[in-house]
Amino acid sequence: MLTYHIDHSSKSPLYEQLYRAIRRDIMTGILSGGERLPAKRPLAAHLHVSQITVETAYGQLAAEGYVRAVPRSGYFVQQVDTLPHPIPPAHHPIPTTSQPSEFVFDFKTNVVDTDCFPFSTWAKLSRAVLTDYDRNLLLETAPQGVFALREQIRRYLYAFRGISVEPEQIIVGAGSEYLVTLLIQLLGRKRTYAIETPGYPKLIQIFQANDAATAPIALDDDGLCFDALCASNASVAYLTPSHHFPLGIVTSAARRMALLRWANEADDRYLIEDDYDSEFRFVSRPIPALKELDHNDRVIYHNTFAKSLAPSLRIGYVALPRNLLPAYQARFGGYASTVPVFEQYTLARFLETGSFERHVNRIRNLYKARLDTLLNALAQSSLTGHYHVSGTEAGLHLLLHMENGMNEQELIASAAANGVRVYGLSSYYVGSSSACPPATVILGYAGIPSAQLTNAVAALAHAWG
Amino acid sequence: MLTYHIDHSSKSPLYEQLYRAIRRDIMTGILSGGERLPAKRPLAAHLHVSQITVETAYGQLAAEGYVRAVPRSGYFVQQVDTLPHPIPPAHHPIPTTSQPSEFVFDFKTNVVDTDCFPFSTWAKLSRAVLTDYDRNLLLETAPQGVFALREQIRRYLYAFRGISVEPEQIIVGAGSEYLVTLLIQLLGRKRTYAIETPGYPKLIQIFQANDAATAPIALDDDGLCFDALCASNASVAYLTPSHHFPLGIVTSAARRMALLRWANEADDRYLIEDDYDSEFRFVSRPIPALKELDHNDRVIYHNTFAKSLAPSLRIGYVALPRNLLPAYQARFGGYASTVPVFEQYTLARFLETGSFERHVNRIRNLYKARLDTLLNALAQSSLTGHYHVSGTEAGLHLLLHMENGMNEQELIASAAANGVRVYGLSSYYVGSSSACPPATVILGYAGIPSAQLTNAVAALAHAWG
Repeated sequence: MLTYHIDHSSKSPLYEQLYRAIRRDIMTGILSGGERLPAKRPLAAHLHVSQITVETAYGQLAAEGYVRAVPRSGYFVQQVDTLPHPIPPAHHPIPTTSQPSEFVFDFKTNVVDTDCFPFSTWAKLSRAVLTDYDRNLLLETAPQGVFALREQIRRYLYAFRGISVEPEQIIVGAGSEYLVTLLIQLLGRKRTYAIETPGYPKLIQIFQANDAATAPIALDDDGLCFDALCASNASVAYLTPSHHFPLGIVTSAARRMALLRWANEADDRYLIEDDYDSEFRFVSRPIPALKELDHNDRVIYHNTFAKSLAPSLRIGYVALPRNLLPAYQARFGGYASTVPVFEQYTLARFLETGSFERHVNRIRNLYKARLDTLLNALAQSSLTGHYHVSGTEAGLHLLLHMENGMNEQELIASAAANGVRVYGLSSYYVGSSSACPPATVILGYAGIPSAQLTNAVAALAHAWG
Repeated sequence: MLTYHIDHSSKSPLYEQLYRAIRRDIMTGILSGGERLPAKRPLAAHLHVSQITVETAYGQLAAEGYVRAVPRSGYFVQQVDTLPHPIPPAHHPIPTTSQPSEFVFDFKTNVVDTDCFPFSTWAKLSRAVLTDYDRNLLLETAPQGVFALREQIRRYLYAFRGISVEPEQIIVGAGSEYLVTLLIQLLGRKRTYAIETPGYPKLIQIFQANDAATAPIALDDDGLCFDALCASNASVAYLTPSHHFPLGIVTSAARRMALLRWANEADDRYLIEDDYDSEFRFVSRPIPALKELDHNDRVIYHNTFAKSLAPSLRIGYVALPRNLLPAYQARFGGYASTVPVFEQYTLARFLETGSFERHVNRIRNLYKARLDTLLNALAQSSLTGHYHVSGTEAGLHLLLHMENGMNEQELIASAAANGVRVYGLSSYYVGSSSACPPATVILGYAGIPSAQLTNAVAALAHAWG
């Protein structure tokens, strides 16, 4: 007769203890295939448990296939392979993630100052959405996102970017990485995507993760080198025409027309316009979007709220040309929206009530002030006469070209030794960085308050002086 | 001299009207490349606007590259291609999306009854999270998700599924489609993925959208056909072992061991365990997860909160084996978390306070009652004796095998004619459906309240009687 220690004082139910004990014996081979388990009544008596306990344990074992019930015969152990010999887990330690930063000042580009975000307004709108929508927040929404939000995005695009699209063309999604992946799936992997070099390191990662071929194209003063694009076999170009990242180049009107013409030369050519920081133009009014001039449905517009609101709010969107909508709906129309309904309604109200526009105007001024502080601090430092800057017409970073005899690596190392993190321009190049201007670092200033920028420049002057 | 009508009563700034007018003339070729714009002062006088207005307009045109400023000479029109001839937008009408349903009752499988969701508790926790975390909700979180939520998922997996993983192994993401895409990117497209047939139609869509090769494998009574898996060139198998969708088969203990052994035979083999409705087992206790038996790091566990909470809350997760963590971190460690921080904290509290467990227990009973109502209504209807059911041990759907002489298409059509939508099993097969049992429909009952289920069955009895 099977004998197990059943602990009546345990929190674990008796049947579960019995089930686990028998299961272990089957898995380790102590009970072997074909063996008949004891009848319920004698086993119950033997273990001082109720017959129901044994029955429940046997039922569970049968449900999981460890034993088989044969009517009028009883329960028989099934033939079960024993488990493979485990590799000690120490062989695969959990890798440590990022260490805390050693830097006092970090001029990184992918941050925003969330201290300026009107959180009390956002929280008020959030509470109102909870109250007003109530249980409706639980209902699944349209795959492309909540209509109210898409309508607000449509209005925003029309009023501030001159773009005319319908809410039906807009897809709201959980950030850039998700949306660019979706675009690659929609446009396909059997083509080559032209990407800018230098450019976003993350962008090339996304294309690589999707096994999509890329053709890195350099830039001249007018934007993406047009001859190089034509010479490539790319049929889609991913661009930052309003303000190139990281060089700051604004694609000229002539180049825009040339790019649109290129896209019009074949039915499957598209331009993906990444309008990532169009809200933060400091000189003159915003540069019109390429999409504004797109009368032939060749431009896919892409933007996110990560820079204008907060990175924790994972909301971005694309506006598809009409001619791509049937393919999108056929292939992805069944995908669920990746952004919770609650955030979508809250953001819709934030846009509708004008809070977004007020916030963007406020932080544009704030970042402009930081830029001025940074430029002044540089001009008044001992570095003056030994550098020039570029890319200062729009935010939220500039290029600092040093002429103090140090190369890029020396600039980074000596800044780091003085507690300041700066980023070498060459690391933003895809493939060869031979076209990279020498001794150039990128300074993102959105994450450093004005008061600290002066100290950060002082530290740089000490490092590089 | 350029002459434009400047509307002083318009809401549009004067400089913008002038800028737009000149830009239009450049784009349409009225002003041609090389032409010199009038000097600012005479043009301002001519148009009755201030000199600042002209200067601002010229500055904007220069910023966008429509004109070029030549010091001490003035502004010159740049050579700009005229725009391609637009295709009338009517050629690409916006496709209409889903029409409202014609059905009185819809036995679809991918719904849950959100009426049972404790929304007041959720809203209370949401408000508390807004108050307690305040501005911290704006900070970007770890790419894998908020630690507090991953810790709660770890506890849940340990307590209810017997799975031991560390929070570092868990990746929170915006739903299944996102997470499976991530897994395909992590495991690569240069291999074949075994998938179950029949199975989720969406799953095959995701693999296709990612250009990942699949090997559809049939099931026998023990689960995925083992010989067919071995004969395929698959190195990863995507499975629903606790409760196969849609057949309801529980993978037997012997088959589980065989699958684990298969995965152990090569270093790059993995099993993806989709534990989609393990919370809703009605007979005996939950079937243990394959991951519980995975001592050699071969099982990737995947689940979402779409069925246990609400589909509008786009939160799912995967638990990676430790040996995949270095590759994940190297390639995707820079990706931003796709779920807003706010929802992550709220769900963490929902789990922590026991609300989730109470809710799941409540809806398990509710769905069990619906299942009983459905089975009773069928048994008491005129259909009795002309059908049998299977897959009723777990939720939230069953298979109804009809023996009334109608084939699957006739069953669906006559049900539809009586206002009831049922789903033919054959449509869930990948490739050939020759193995599909005849005249079988899937009834998902989670979305239909008990009171209506009786009426729905009456309508089916009328259709099929």
